Amino acid sequence: MQTYNPITQEIVDKLKAITGPSYVKTDKDILVQYQTDYENDPQKFHMPEAAVLPANAEEISQIVKLANEYHFPITVRSAGTSLADGAIPVYGGLVLCMERLNKIIELNEEGMYLTAEAGVRTLDIQKEAKAHGLMYAGDPSSAESCMIGANLATNAGGLRAVRYGVTRNQVYSLEMVTPTGEIVECGGILKKCSTGYDLEQLIIGSEGTLGIITKVTVRLIPLPPYHFDVLAIYTDPRQALYMVPQLMKAGIDPTSVEYMDNSYVRDTADYCHYSDMPHYEDGIYVIITVETFREDELDTKMETVCNICEETGAVEVLEADDRIWNMRRNIQNSCELVSKVFLTDDVVVPVHKIAPTIEKIMEIGEDYPFQVKINAHIGDGNLHIVLCKVNMTDEEWAASVDKFHHQVYEYAYSVGGRLAGEHGIGAKKLQYMEEFTPSGELQVMKTIKRAMDPNNILNPGKLFNA
Amino acid sequence: MQTYNPITQEIVDKLKAITGPSYVKTDKDILVQYQTDYENDPQKFHMPEAAVLPANAEEISQIVKLANEYHFPITVRSAGTSLADGAIPVYGGLVLCMERLNKIIELNEEGMYLTAEAGVRTLDIQKEAKAHGLMYAGDPSSAESCMIGANLATNAGGLRAVRYGVTRNQVYSLEMVTPTGEIVECGGILKKCSTGYDLEQLIIGSEGTLGIITKVTVRLIPLPPYHFDVLAIYTDPRQALYMVPQLMKAGIDPTSVEYMDNSYVRDTADYCHYSDMPHYEDGIYVIITVETFREDELDTKMETVCNICEETGAVEVLEADDRIWNMRRNIQNSCELVSKVFLTDDVVVPVHKIAPTIEKIMEIGEDYPFQVKINAHIGDGNLHIVLCKVNMTDEEWAASVDKFHHQVYEYAYSVGGRLAGEHGIGAKKLQYMEEFTPSGELQVMKTIKRAMDPNNILNPGKLFNA
Repeated sequence: MQTYNPITQEIVDKLKAITGPSYVKTDKDILVQYQTDYENDPQKFHMPEAAVLPANAEEISQIVKLANEYHFPITVRSAGTSLADGAIPVYGGLVLCMERLNKIIELNEEGMYLTAEAGVRTLDIQKEAKAHGLMYAGDPSSAESCMIGANLATNAGGLRAVRYGVTRNQVYSLEMVTPTGEIVECGGILKKCSTGYDLEQLIIGSEGTLGIITKVTVRLIPLPPYHFDVLAIYTDPRQALYMVPQLMKAGIDPTSVEYMDNSYVRDTADYCHYSDMPHYEDGIYVIITVETFREDELDTKMETVCNICEETGAVEVLEADDRIWNMRRNIQNSCELVSKVFLTDDVVVPVHKIAPTIEKIMEIGEDYPFQVKINAHIGDGNLHIVLCKVNMTDEEWAASVDKFHHQVYEYAYSVGGRLAGEHGIGAKKLQYMEEFTPSGELQVMKTIKRAMDPNNILNPGKLFNA
Repeated sequence: MQTYNPITQEIVDKLKAITGPSYVKTDKDILVQYQTDYENDPQKFHMPEAAVLPANAEEISQIVKLANEYHFPITVRSAGTSLADGAIPVYGGLVLCMERLNKIIELNEEGMYLTAEAGVRTLDIQKEAKAHGLMYAGDPSSAESCMIGANLATNAGGLRAVRYGVTRNQVYSLEMVTPTGEIVECGGILKKCSTGYDLEQLIIGSEGTLGIITKVTVRLIPLPPYHFDVLAIYTDPRQALYMVPQLMKAGIDPTSVEYMDNSYVRDTADYCHYSDMPHYEDGIYVIITVETFREDELDTKMETVCNICEETGAVEVLEADDRIWNMRRNIQNSCELVSKVFLTDDVVVPVHKIAPTIEKIMEIGEDYPFQVKINAHIGDGNLHIVLCKVNMTDEEWAASVDKFHHQVYEYAYSVGGRLAGEHGIGAKKLQYMEEFTPSGELQVMKTIKRAMDPNNILNPGKLFNA
């Protein structure tokens, strides 16, 4: 178990000298907001000793150097929307908040890129791009509140990854403060590059353990003027799932392919107060979005999609209106109707394994006392399993969740899957990361972490035991 | 200057025990083939002390452990098509040849991926995919001879990167032997992943300095059934170059946008013995390829492309026939008509900076005694500058090449460019890498290299001074 020094008054004074006194917090009433993120289980909460809200990379650099000098841990916090306990300061110490790095620096229409500080909300980047007739294609479900730097840190996925890829695929370059406090730029606005190690790709997805991302430049793409959303309703999950490979091979290039099991259809309809949803009782909803640059292309692609859905057994194929997307967006909220404590999980498998994986998980779930709910970005093999605690005791819950996860992860790894498709590992899955990652691969990760962060200052207790 | 131990008879015997005696070469007559790659300047050649042709990852693992034990350097060699002295054993030692790892292991149509040993030729992967109605989109100009593992090692680009991205974007996973001899798999057949560091992206483009790639799994995509190739001929290079942004914003999604200056039009036509090429005397050729999934889409896109070319000042817009592509493919060979020794360079800049960059290079070139020839993948900002030595003395040549490069690289970095878009740094540009890379970024690269390869065994003298 790693140990650190406490944050003394001397350190607090030095922090205040760096950022100005009003940006260092030590008051328990204020710190309490930083003890969790989207984690809803109080057993997972941890209080930091202090929080700091720096203004820029230079201040962050000084803070990180201070942490190395006095040996206290830093946990980076963006909007606190992590579903993997990623923003929880599991070793106490200092929480470093990114919210003041909130400026969009440049949108270059000719070069089709946007540069922003790391604390800019993803939604604001999407809006800014759209205002210029362009698109930022990264689109995590939490886009309204999450911040772009954290999207990079977790390699956030989201709803449009089938066509556009994940956050990793949107990034040209980034600026970071290294674990020893240097400010380093990685990458460039380049479509090709073969000039040394691809550091930005190493940093993306490293969950703040290899550097604090302070600035990012993302690519913008032409905004397709046309789109349609189809809702295909199935009553047999296998038919819904086996539709995916047909769709992927048809050259349609869909933007989204979203799956909601029947429990979600019911709960999200109830949550949104929609009383007349089709097949409320027995329907599985698959939402397919296609975007095009030409209107006639839209018609022929829509026809192809509808045909594929009907041929694979959809009982109804409709245009998906705003209500459907509103239900999709409220998936997380709707779980609160079922249980105050629930656990959202994130697993990814090869796309052609998504059908047997969901079947297997449903089969595993039958042996457990909790309700198992599944929604999935089935176009990219990424599925979210929600377990609802309802009235179980803490002990029952902890033991059965762990047992369930072992069964699910063992299956996922057996078909080439991984622990997390888009939420990251955080503190939540650290033990599973240690257990399921092949030792050679894990060893290389640890070698890099130890070389870059010799004092283990940045985000300890996340990803793996460094 | 790093020093190593010589390869003694004891080491040779141990190598023979690993691979079988016929796969270890120490005969000078045989070793001479390994002293260079596509480098044509004998001053850059280096003889290895021995060469080994292992059969698989297990043998490579043992060889690498031996190198760590006896402290001799290993230079990995695939097809020897490097244009950056990447396969030259600059510290002598052992050349490790990948040619026996030449099996395609699996093509999975349902999962749309292909797994191959690292020494399989890229062309054979393209062919195998095509035979199944699929496409492997990586397409370096040297595809006929180069090997897939080396494509990863250099993050090879090529002709189709505008639409499909570079090698980095085609890879699902890889197996490597680490610098200390462990066999490690990185990545998975996953469209999303947020499960620890993205090691495969770190290894890709690391030019064999962080691991020897032994197996790769690449994505395959649906093969678009339709395509057209347009040849737009310009007489003013600026008009040709300023066409690119128009094309990129039109939602055409071109596969290739290739630029050949007039010297290349003449030399490649001469090389191919084509006597009646249009605008042989004054033409700049831009070749544009577009692929589609529907026939009617082909017609409308072709119309759009032709309109853009005509509006931007093309003097002729024709269908590009096989002869045009044959000329393009013989760019490198045609230089031999001009000069026995010539130097191929590779620079990348942001796409919207390609026009001023080419103008600037032509301007710089006017002050030098050698001929400057330029061809470019202008759709992704990647340009190749060839300098022809002709009758210059070695001293004149070395001094003026170095001065020219400094001017070009300074300009490229000033617009956000980098030293290499697709050829890598190799030994050829190591000094420039040390000079032009911002020190913070270079330091992080060296930290990783030293941690992963503490004895500096793999490909020393490449990329940077480790």
